[in-house]
This record gives sequence, structure tokens and C-alpha cells, in this order.
Amino acid sequence: MTTSNTGTGDVDPAVREELDRLRDSIDNIDAAVVHMLAERFKCTQQVGRLKAVHQLPPADPAREARQIARLRSLAENAKLDPAFAEKFLNFIIAEVIRHHERIAGDTGNGQLPGAS
Amino acid sequence: MTTSNTGTGDVDPAVREELDRLRDSIDNIDAAVVHMLAERFKCTQQVGRLKAVHQLPPADPAREARQIARLRSLAENAKLDPAFAEKFLNFIIAEVIRHHERIAGDTGNGQLPGAS
Repeated sequence: MTTSNTGTGDVDPAVREELDRLRDSIDNIDAAVVHMLAERFKCTQQVGRLKAVHQLPPADPAREARQIARLRSLAENAKLDPAFAEKFLNFIIAEVIRHHERIAGDTGNGQLPGAS
Repeated sequence: MTTSNTGTGDVDPAVREELDRLRDSIDNIDAAVVHMLAERFKCTQQVGRLKAVHQLPPADPAREARQIARLRSLAENAKLDPAFAEKFLNFIIAEVIRHHERIAGDTGNGQLPGAS
């Protein structure tokens, strides 16, 4: 196949069509993920409030270890790099902790209610 | 309500049940997101190959700007912090670039095929 690009902005129509098709899928997936994450943060905000109100320990390392092991295994089955899945969970948890710091501040409780 | 925790590991059953319910939802959402991301990387790997084969320009800043604006707007509607949605996209793109570096290496093309 020699349907190459002959210059910037001058892309073979078949290649452009294939690129657009892939980008549409990427955009659909991103929309789905953003909505899933919005739901996830609703859950973790409830966890944060529950922990703050009932003085539950801020962190649960056993829970977090189970989450990581499970996500790595799911990733492997889905042919996603397990190391990336773990990095992704850590990225999300960092945001959850940021939210929980706000909740702890709001309830006047200096203790952080944990991420999971 | 005074169903507070009276010590580590000694959690009111109703609170424990609510926490477990929320964690089950978090786990379901994480599984969904991991599978969506596996599909997303399949798409971006195809984009990477397409760009490498057809010598398309590695980056498309206009496309990326549209992606960011769109995700911020979707996030706002879903009541997710738009700044987080943007941070999330950047986190994913960093991983895509890592993949593309590998593809570029494999095809013997030093040029990076871009993230989107």
C-alpha cells in the first residue's frame, strides 16, 4: 500500500477516513470514561463522608492492596499493561484524597478519611 | 445517628454494610474503566501505526485542543471537575506517547507518531 501523505494537510482520503474512524471511537470511549469517573467520585465522596462521620480509620491498606491486585489481573485479561492499570488507580486515588481533604476540612475533622 | 465506630476493626454493621455497598460500586466502575481503557489503547495503537506508515505529522495540536475542550464540557455536565478531566486526558496521552515511542522504535522510524 502506498497511500502515503504527500505533505502536511494533504492526507490520502482513505487514510484520513480511517484516522477519523479511530478518533471517533477514542472520543466515544473518553466520554464513557468521564461519565464513569463522575460516578466513581460520587461513591468515594460518600465513602469520605461516612468515614468522617463515623471516625473510621483514614486508610485501609488491605483494601488498597486488594484493589491493585484485582485491577492488575483485570488489565492482564483485557490486554492492558498491568503496570499502567496500577498507575491509573494511584492517579485516581490521589484525586480522591484531594477530595477527602476538602471533606475533612468541611467537617472540621483534621483526620483524612481515606481513599477507598 | 450515633452508630459510630468504637475502635479499629469494630465497625457498626450498618456502616460496614454501606461502606461495602459503595466499595462494590467503585470496584464495578474500575473494572468498566479498565476495559474501556484497554479498548482506547487498541485504537491509539492503530492511530500510531497509521501515522508511522503514512508519515503523518506526529502531533495534532488542533485535535488535542478540541479533545480537551470537549472533555471539560462533558465533565462539567457530569458534575466532574473539568480540571481533573483535563489532567486525566493528559495522563492517558502520556501513556499513549510511551506506546508510540515503542511503535516508532519497532518501525525504525525515529519520528513519534503522536497521541491522538
